[in-house]
Amino acid sequence: MSAAGEFELIASLASRLDAAADGLGIGDDAAAWPVSPGALVVATTDMLVEGVHFRLDWTSPRDLGWKALAVSLSDLAAMGATPGRALVSVALLPAQTALVLEMYEGLNELARLSGTRVVGGDTVRTSGPLVVNVALLGEAEPGRLLRRDGARPGDLLVLTGAVGASAAGLALLLEGDRARLAGPEAATLLAAHHRPMPRLAAGRALASLGLRCAIDVSDGVASEAWHLARASGVTIRLDTDRLPLTAAAVALIGEAKARQLAVTGGEDYQLLFTVPEARLAEVESVLREEDRPTVVGRVTELRPGGLVELVAAGRMVEPGQPGYVAF
Amino acid sequence: MSAAGEFELIASLASRLDAAADGLGIGDDAAAWPVSPGALVVATTDMLVEGVHFRLDWTSPRDLGWKALAVSLSDLAAMGATPGRALVSVALLPAQTALVLEMYEGLNELARLSGTRVVGGDTVRTSGPLVVNVALLGEAEPGRLLRRDGARPGDLLVLTGAVGASAAGLALLLEGDRARLAGPEAATLLAAHHRPMPRLAAGRALASLGLRCAIDVSDGVASEAWHLARASGVTIRLDTDRLPLTAAAVALIGEAKARQLAVTGGEDYQLLFTVPEARLAEVESVLREEDRPTVVGRVTELRPGGLVELVAAGRMVEPGQPGYVAF
Repeated sequence: MSAAGEFELIASLASRLDAAADGLGIGDDAAAWPVSPGALVVATTDMLVEGVHFRLDWTSPRDLGWKALAVSLSDLAAMGATPGRALVSVALLPAQTALVLEMYEGLNELARLSGTRVVGGDTVRTSGPLVVNVALLGEAEPGRLLRRDGARPGDLLVLTGAVGASAAGLALLLEGDRARLAGPEAATLLAAHHRPMPRLAAGRALASLGLRCAIDVSDGVASEAWHLARASGVTIRLDTDRLPLTAAAVALIGEAKARQLAVTGGEDYQLLFTVPEARLAEVESVLREEDRPTVVGRVTELRPGGLVELVAAGRMVEPGQPGYVAF
Repeated sequence: MSAAGEFELIASLASRLDAAADGLGIGDDAAAWPVSPGALVVATTDMLVEGVHFRLDWTSPRDLGWKALAVSLSDLAAMGATPGRALVSVALLPAQTALVLEMYEGLNELARLSGTRVVGGDTVRTSGPLVVNVALLGEAEPGRLLRRDGARPGDLLVLTGAVGASAAGLALLLEGDRARLAGPEAATLLAAHHRPMPRLAAGRALASLGLRCAIDVSDGVASEAWHLARASGVTIRLDTDRLPLTAAAVALIGEAKARQLAVTGGEDYQLLFTVPEARLAEVESVLREEDRPTVVGRVTELRPGGLVELVAAGRMVEPGQPGYVAF
């Protein structure tokens, strides 16, 4: 098949997705759909670039598709919103047609699991690295949105699930030791890295409780705590010893390194949120087992500009330590 | 400023746009907005790649920003939809920071003119060509959407405005003759190429009349007529002699070449639509002067799979002629 023919194949794939997903049977200049009465539209977009956000020798096309959608789904989870429709744009070399078709399959796997429909997109040539952009639309109830600026003194800082597994998987890939990459623990960590599962149900549950403040852990717990502290104008004390680790990470890279990656490693896509202490039991009752909450810190006081204090083994961690956010 | 600092600058620009545009004061994991009661959300996305869709030695950063949004606005115009909110993703080299900030300014110029708000985006590094992706959201009334499959035998084929100017501008750029690029006619053609104006008011007016079938001329009139013919399952006779030309194109490149580009040249972003003959007067009465409609053909019969007959000077154009769509 000629390169032009292959591009047409992808375009036709995109238009088939479009037609299949669109209950209204709209033409193909744009997609259209109804919104629940009274709901807000919630929208986010993420662009992934080969060599910057992923390497094709480390990431399979299917995993790439999964992750490209997961990143945006996690943004909606952090808002307490429900997906959704996705528009997927890809810039590819002519030789990458088969790869991109596989990528779409991985993306669709997560789309199905998350109730997302791919309703449109664009497929274009490039002479450079593969680029994937996902624009994701969802819905939320007005007044039931989680934000970054809702942390209040006295609130507990709480995390869903465990952290550091994705960064540990990446560390193994960087290390490149085939023997260590082969075992079941490595498989767990690589899965965490390649196929993160956005915490959509957790986000919705927290929003339904009327909680106000959450963020997804895309850049590391310390850094995300800083975003909350800055947006809310508060001091957050983060007790790094309390961060739940993955057993596989502790087994493979040791507890010290696993804990360091739990503080600073990104791409876990857990939710970090705040809750008044009196409401913690409610939170525990609504979250699923896999989103089990752990108290990892506390909002201590109002502080214009925000501050994060990292505490380890009861001692304040000095500036310059990995994960410390210097102001 | 360090490269990292400059990236932060762009990110902060994006988040400022976000905050300014969002009446709801939502945090920055995603944007959120209300939808008119009963309205459909309409969405489209377009990705532009340096060296494929634009050249930075031919296109100024501001014009690039304008065009990146114009392409998607034109998709909404073709649906009869109203913008809108935009999510803008950019992959850039560290050295392109100033260029991208200028690009945002051009994009915002058209955003303001078209009632579009940039509510989010993503700014990422690349090692390759500049990539700009716009995801555009708008609204439309259910049952008032223009589609590709609504052409019926007996309908007239009608075009807003004139065509071929953008392609003539591109031809001048390709020719590279500085003397010919200097005059006022060239300026008209280059403006048509660099700053196309999506026909949003025309699209809305046609949709309000209850018309059913339109497409925007992004790839050339002949090729767009083919999309309508195929989607609607009809034969469309396109009289190429009737296509309105731009005086500047005729003056600079001659009528024959100007007409050829009117048939096959892309990126005019006019609307090509069909209308029952009895309703032509209504169409003429609702379109603005700059969208003045010209009848350029007719839907002649049902034809499964679709067919376009190109007619010039009363004769059928042979297959192999430029612009003829072979089946």
